[in-house]
Amino acid sequence: MQDVQGLSDDREIALDRVGVAGLSHPIVVLDRTTEKQRTIGTFTMSVSLPREQKGTHMSRFVEVLNDHHGEVTMRTVPAILRDLRDRLDAASARIEVEFPYFLERAAPVSGATALMDYACAFIGEVSEHASDDFVLRVRVPVTSLCPCSKAISERGAHNQRGYITISVRTDRDELGAPQLVWIEELIDVAERSASAPVYPLLKRPDEAFVTVQAYDNPVFVEDMVRNVARVLQDDRRVQWFRVHAENHESIHNHAAFAQVTWARPG
Amino acid sequence: MQDVQGLSDDREIALDRVGVAGLSHPIVVLDRTTEKQRTIGTFTMSVSLPREQKGTHMSRFVEVLNDHHGEVTMRTVPAILRDLRDRLDAASARIEVEFPYFLERAAPVSGATALMDYACAFIGEVSEHASDDFVLRVRVPVTSLCPCSKAISERGAHNQRGYITISVRTDRDELGAPQLVWIEELIDVAERSASAPVYPLLKRPDEAFVTVQAYDNPVFVEDMVRNVARVLQDDRRVQWFRVHAENHESIHNHAAFAQVTWARPG
Amino acid sequence: MQDVQGLSDDREIALDRVGVAGLSHPIVVLDRTTEKQRTIGTFTMSVSLPREQKGTHMSRFVEVLNDHHGEVTMRTVPAILRDLRDRLDAASARIEVEFPYFLERAAPVSGATALMDYACAFIGEVSEHASDDFVLRVRVPVTSLCPCSKAISERGAHNQRGYITISVRTDRDELGAPQLVWIEELIDVAERSASAPVYPLLKRPDEAFVTVQAYDNPVFVEDMVRNVARVLQDDRRVQWFRVHAENHESIHNHAAFAQVTWARPG
Amino acid sequence: MQDVQGLSDDREIALDRVGVAGLSHPIVVLDRTTEKQRTIGTFTMSVSLPREQKGTHMSRFVEVLNDHHGEVTMRTVPAILRDLRDRLDAASARIEVEFPYFLERAAPVSGATALMDYACAFIGEVSEHASDDFVLRVRVPVTSLCPCSKAISERGAHNQRGYITISVRTDRDELGAPQLVWIEELIDVAERSASAPVYPLLKRPDEAFVTVQAYDNPVFVEDMVRNVARVLQDDRRVQWFRVHAENHESIHNHAAFAQVTWARPG
Repeated sequence: MQDVQGLSDDREIALDRVGVAGLSHPIVVLDRTTEKQRTIGTFTMSVSLPREQKGTHMSRFVEVLNDHHGEVTMRTVPAILRDLRDRLDAASARIEVEFPYFLERAAPVSGATALMDYACAFIGEVSEHASDDFVLRVRVPVTSLCPCSKAISERGAHNQRGYITISVRTDRDELGAPQLVWIEELIDVAERSASAPVYPLLKRPDEAFVTVQAYDNPVFVEDMVRNVARVLQDDRRVQWFRVHAENHESIHNHAAFAQVTWARPG
Repeated sequence: MQDVQGLSDDREIALDRVGVAGLSHPIVVLDRTTEKQRTIGTFTMSVSLPREQKGTHMSRFVEVLNDHHGEVTMRTVPAILRDLRDRLDAASARIEVEFPYFLERAAPVSGATALMDYACAFIGEVSEHASDDFVLRVRVPVTSLCPCSKAISERGAHNQRGYITISVRTDRDELGAPQLVWIEELIDVAERSASAPVYPLLKRPDEAFVTVQAYDNPVFVEDMVRNVARVLQDDRRVQWFRVHAENHESIHNHAAFAQVTWARPG
Repeated sequence: MQDVQGLSDDREIALDRVGVAGLSHPIVVLDRTTEKQRTIGTFTMSVSLPREQKGTHMSRFVEVLNDHHGEVTMRTVPAILRDLRDRLDAASARIEVEFPYFLERAAPVSGATALMDYACAFIGEVSEHASDDFVLRVRVPVTSLCPCSKAISERGAHNQRGYITISVRTDRDELGAPQLVWIEELIDVAERSASAPVYPLLKRPDEAFVTVQAYDNPVFVEDMVRNVARVLQDDRRVQWFRVHAENHESIHNHAAFAQVTWARPG
Repeated sequence: MQDVQGLSDDREIALDRVGVAGLSHPIVVLDRTTEKQRTIGTFTMSVSLPREQKGTHMSRFVEVLNDHHGEVTMRTVPAILRDLRDRLDAASARIEVEFPYFLERAAPVSGATALMDYACAFIGEVSEHASDDFVLRVRVPVTSLCPCSKAISERGAHNQRGYITISVRTDRDELGAPQLVWIEELIDVAERSASAPVYPLLKRPDEAFVTVQAYDNPVFVEDMVRNVARVLQDDRRVQWFRVHAENHESIHNHAAFAQVTWARPG
């Protein structure tokens, strides 16, 4: 059978990314408490395509994923990327996998526990000339209470669900691997930067507790971003971050947001 | 050219609905203040298919929509439906069109105005044996403040954006047409049933006003649904309704909801 | 602390459904081949609320889900529903849980295997006066090739990805439980009703095979619905079904669809 | 009333973007044929925030949008951005507005016309030190037919709906304004780069025509991206582009995609 993808191409245009998107697959990720967590990933995988080749062989992306049995962690992503690069005979390879991550959370007073989901992603890339790249992204739902509303109102203050999204690149350890930052650590930073955490299960004493906690800690989206940024700047493992906070405003039908991108100088 | 759709079928299965979905088209709807409002509709249109016919002629749905120049109101939907039924030689026809509807809203203290969007829908159906059907659906964003949180907490109370969705069927007037209920009326009912309305533009005195308004009017999702239901039951035009309220809880990563469906007895 | 939800209500309006929506939680479902499959469910859970009670206790939905450790199958849903009804002191309870279900699929010629995802749902309900209800819903991606395009064109035929969604209610066995229909069975019925199945991994001989298979089996959305309906009518376990087919037309920017709902007579 | 946003901040972190997102508003855009087209925009608007200021004044974004009466074109975006920068006392301002754009399309044989929607966006930015920036983005649905499937199969070839997304920056004219590229021009480039265009309305002779047209012009996602890139490289107005093509594969439940980003050298 003819290998149409393998034909030569004379349009003189190399492509940055060629691959598959929206591919759903069960995965296993590292979990600080229980070691391994089974979840479901949505994959975008691509390689670069040199100017002289007509097409890439799309089925090999699925084969490489199969070979790794869905083990997708900060530790295994580099090996998957190298396999992609080799099997597809490419100069660079890239993976982005999004997945829900579950943590058991205890309510602040009753201690009642239940699982809560956080939307996470690994974005990894290997290329010929640049050093390997790995970004961890975590989206954390939080409660935010408006400082302006509290200051100017006789009683009450509007509050709402917000989402803090943190993306980080870390420094390399002595073996050249990116230093590990746990998803749990970023969730913790986000929650401490908001008015109060969001919980899966709250009994009445817990609800009273978080209501007062939020009322006593008003923050704008700007504050949430700055609070997170301060902590990450002080964490020497972190070489680069982007922090985005978004409030689904309870008094508007649109969102308020703030964002900062930062790289460690030097 | 062969009319494949017109072939006979011997599987002995009549189909309830055959048609097109996800069709985007500019439309003109009635507006209480400015008479006509241009917006964009997303259409699902179908007809029934008798057991002996292989397929329907999908292009005619688009032709009928063209013929009506996108005029889609409670007054024109019956004519569109009859045209669909005739052109597609069907026993019944159905349209569902969803569209954003914009209203100029004035902030409660400053009077500053801006446009706000409401997700609306018309669902119409004509059939051989039943009387014509028309349902108006309006989704209204609101502020809801939790009565439990307020009652049990020393200060503050959690609140959030909620959505009240009202669907209504009305009685017929003397000419057999459904009595008109304005989108604006349902928005008004929904907002008065919540803790406070949601506005597109609030200056500081407005924000203080709605903060206190919400704090003084705590409601559960259950309350919002019952408040709306009470008003609609007392409106003699309304023969049937469904009311659904959903809070995007500010203390959880999931929603709370309530729903009731009601038909006027007799 | 005051039990605000437990207060009496004098608006005289009983509510059909009060509960939580959009709750994400890991679940375990039955799998014909490997016995148990871990996946992730998105839950909507509700109970009815009598006219005299102000509100329901939302946290108990999460507690009941916890108690069942996420075991959510056709066999366990009735027990979860009874627990909900008891814990929330309600006349009726309802669960809808949507989840991706993964199956290993072998390519038709090479036999190369990979996992493919199917969007499934369980919808269960218990109430005071009606018998318990359970509906299984499965959405199956397929290839559909247009019979009209093939018949009228000199060469080629447009085809596209379509989705066949099957919902079924089954008869009761001697113990009163709904007879089991496997997700795998409904996937099989759907695929045999389309032009060709959709696969996660196809090598070149496989691609040639499914291309010809689709070309030799042209179907409209109407055909796919009727083909499924015929098989389900002949399956004595099935008491009720709804079949919906939708093509993401490759020649239009909208979809074509067909639907039929059927109940076994008598 | 206290101006909480105006307070000073000592965290020493300037923010890149602070503003509103998901704001829906009617807009008027330029249309090559009918001069002006009314549609609906979804806005993300932001300004930078200096390190010494606690927060921005979110209501002013809506006020600026009001002042411009929703006139949002390549010609007016710079003025809106300057107003945002002035009113919010910021160093930089950014707007991204997404909107459906409708064109009347004539079927290739019958000439039957109907409207089709294209998802477009304007992304504009003004900052202190860089020159003003403006990007036009257009997403065009197309038919793509697989060259590999056609080459290796005895008959037929799988095809599907694909989406080509083109983003362009243009050179400045003598007045410093970006040279105009019409949405219609980019739609035309995209359609000529695919196997066949997608139409809103096709009669039988049209369907036969596009079926053969697609069969005779097989393209991979890689080909579509390269075909567009070649045309844009030859267009001297274009200084920078990104082209992305995505096929909703009819034989898989995932997508295939290709992408290239290019800047004119020198």
